[in-house]
Amino acid sequence: MDTKQAIVARTDIGMGTGKLAAQVAHASLSAYEDADERTRKAWKGSGQKKVVLKASSESGIFELADRAEREGLAHAVIRDAGHTQLDPGTVTCLGVGPGPEETVDRVTGDLPLY
Amino acid sequence: MDTKQAIVARTDIGMGTGKLAAQVAHASLSAYEDADERTRKAWKGSGQKKVVLKASSESGIFELADRAEREGLAHAVIRDAGHTQLDPGTVTCLGVGPGPEETVDRVTGDLPLY
Repeated sequence: MDTKQAIVARTDIGMGTGKLAAQVAHASLSAYEDADERTRKAWKGSGQKKVVLKASSESGIFELADRAEREGLAHAVIRDAGHTQLDPGTVTCLGVGPGPEETVDRVTGDLPLY
Repeated sequence: MDTKQAIVARTDIGMGTGKLAAQVAHASLSAYEDADERTRKAWKGSGQKKVVLKASSESGIFELADRAEREGLAHAVIRDAGHTQLDPGTVTCLGVGPGPEETVDRVTGDLPLY
């Protein structure tokens, strides 16, 4: 099984580069922990394939999370604690997968690379 | 125990923003998996505190990895598979921790925020 993880990050909230990277890492780990053992192993064994994609709004993130849920994919919506830069509770990212590459692409395949 | 993870990323190899975020996420997960169960739980339970820091060379990364090793901290050096942007095997990031905040700061505390 070819597996993949996609992390979708908002472009409309002015995150700096380091902030963005930390939020993406948070989404990656949280979605990973939502995946089943077999999928985790397949994904790690094949080098943790991962893409970072852009979404332009909070509603875009929720729509994708809903689609991931309906596809049965591991996923996690990340909110910032708000100590710096953002208001507390601001949605920053969505992690989708690891999961079968085709299924992940059905959810996030139309989004541009970050 | 206050716990923390630091991810150190190279600034001298011209990674784009999405590439950087993906490499940081890779380092975060790999170092996390190198930590013991108790530390993992403490870190997740307190919101996965995470900072992204800058290093300006490969030798800087290796020096920090050695210091993390000597402090007994979980850590992981990440190399890029090199399908895009970078030469295969290029060292991109180092994940340090999760571990006790003080110990992580002894290793990475002098580095600037990304």
